[in-house]
Amino acid sequence: MLTFIGMGLWDEKDISLKGVEAARSADVVCVEFYTSKLVGTEIKKIEELIGREIRVLDRGDLEDNSKSLIEEAKKKNIAVLVPGDPMVATTHSAMRIEAERMGVRTKIIHGASIISAVCGLTGLHNYRFGKSASVAYPYGKPSRTPVNVVKQNWSIDAHTLLFLDLHPEPMLIPTAVEILREAGLDNCYAVGVARAGSDEPVVKCDTLEKLGKYDFGGGLHVLVVLAALHFMEYECLKTFASAPPEIEGLVE
Amino acid sequence: MLTFIGMGLWDEKDISLKGVEAARSADVVCVEFYTSKLVGTEIKKIEELIGREIRVLDRGDLEDNSKSLIEEAKKKNIAVLVPGDPMVATTHSAMRIEAERMGVRTKIIHGASIISAVCGLTGLHNYRFGKSASVAYPYGKPSRTPVNVVKQNWSIDAHTLLFLDLHPEPMLIPTAVEILREAGLDNCYAVGVARAGSDEPVVKCDTLEKLGKYDFGGGLHVLVVLAALHFMEYECLKTFASAPPEIEGLVE
Repeated sequence: MLTFIGMGLWDEKDISLKGVEAARSADVVCVEFYTSKLVGTEIKKIEELIGREIRVLDRGDLEDNSKSLIEEAKKKNIAVLVPGDPMVATTHSAMRIEAERMGVRTKIIHGASIISAVCGLTGLHNYRFGKSASVAYPYGKPSRTPVNVVKQNWSIDAHTLLFLDLHPEPMLIPTAVEILREAGLDNCYAVGVARAGSDEPVVKCDTLEKLGKYDFGGGLHVLVVLAALHFMEYECLKTFASAPPEIEGLVE
Repeated sequence: MLTFIGMGLWDEKDISLKGVEAARSADVVCVEFYTSKLVGTEIKKIEELIGREIRVLDRGDLEDNSKSLIEEAKKKNIAVLVPGDPMVATTHSAMRIEAERMGVRTKIIHGASIISAVCGLTGLHNYRFGKSASVAYPYGKPSRTPVNVVKQNWSIDAHTLLFLDLHPEPMLIPTAVEILREAGLDNCYAVGVARAGSDEPVVKCDTLEKLGKYDFGGGLHVLVVLAALHFMEYECLKTFASAPPEIEGLVE
């Protein structure tokens, strides 16, 4: 059996009680920090919490060599600890299909994810978010995908959550802003969120250009590109994200 | 200080370690089951876990009379336990703005939410979901909002997560299907999800019409109306949601 356990957003204490119990009772406990990171903790602390040694999986273990872990899960209960909520990363669902095909049962224990946390931190309404996208480090020309997604979302009056690339290192907002502007996104308002789930998250709303110069501190960072605002969203952004007064112009 | 603590999806063990610690050290602990429910538990079990009596807030405490709780939070540390992830419900962000205006600091401890869990359970990719919407019990003519949102999302090739009304009682999929069909939605494929976060979630993909006749068991229920599918999403729906073979036709 293969149990994917969400660890939530920031440190080792963001895992649920159910998740800790499942990890403690598994035969083997693995963790992967390839699809996301838990910036506020380290392996040693997680090992202390679970009370045992933890195997760290790399990209290869999750993708090309995932069969060997699944093979092992035919005989043992294997817990895979994952930052955020499992399966939001497509890597996990590919692994889960492979497991079920090989006759290995799978289970998910959910954790907090940035895709809901961003609503709480910004005050933006969940039902006003459209598709999300990722801003990748450019190899050659920057990908137009995130900008196209923002434009698609604008066509239905929806905000866009942008995840920032994690490899080779977590991308910060200034770099993301530069890439987005180069790909043709400009003259718009956005909200930057840093260190969601920590005791000191930073949430700041401004023009995309100005966010590129704002000091958000360390990662992880995400960006939300805004569409039109509900009046309550506007109130929240003023209160929680020091939004400039002119965003009142975005209120429908 | 007012701390909103997410309890996750199903029972009292879905809260994070951080959430339990914060509730245990608060002066007053409240819980609200107005914006959502934790079907797998009861107040008594939550009280045993936290080790103290818990005050149950009703709609009035959260909305019209929210000032009295906030006034109390000027002098005491008040923890508000909330199903799912706090602030996904707009009721919470309204309360949070009110608190900050009255000079009361607020904090959020995140929990697992159906909006990320639905990706794990169905295998649908988070970045392919558009706006979400709610299916409300009709008073007179059914609202066209959810159907309009589905159509907006289709225009950008995005799936739609539909929350089902909770009042006066949690709506189940057959009722939601009836309301949606009456509002003009038909000839489409959807996925029903029941009891996310429990040990026995049910996930079933079929035509909207057929889902209306499927036995999902008890609540809570949500529905995802499908747009075009990525090949991996198709594979997941076949494996995890007993999708009928003809959904291959939805693959882009």
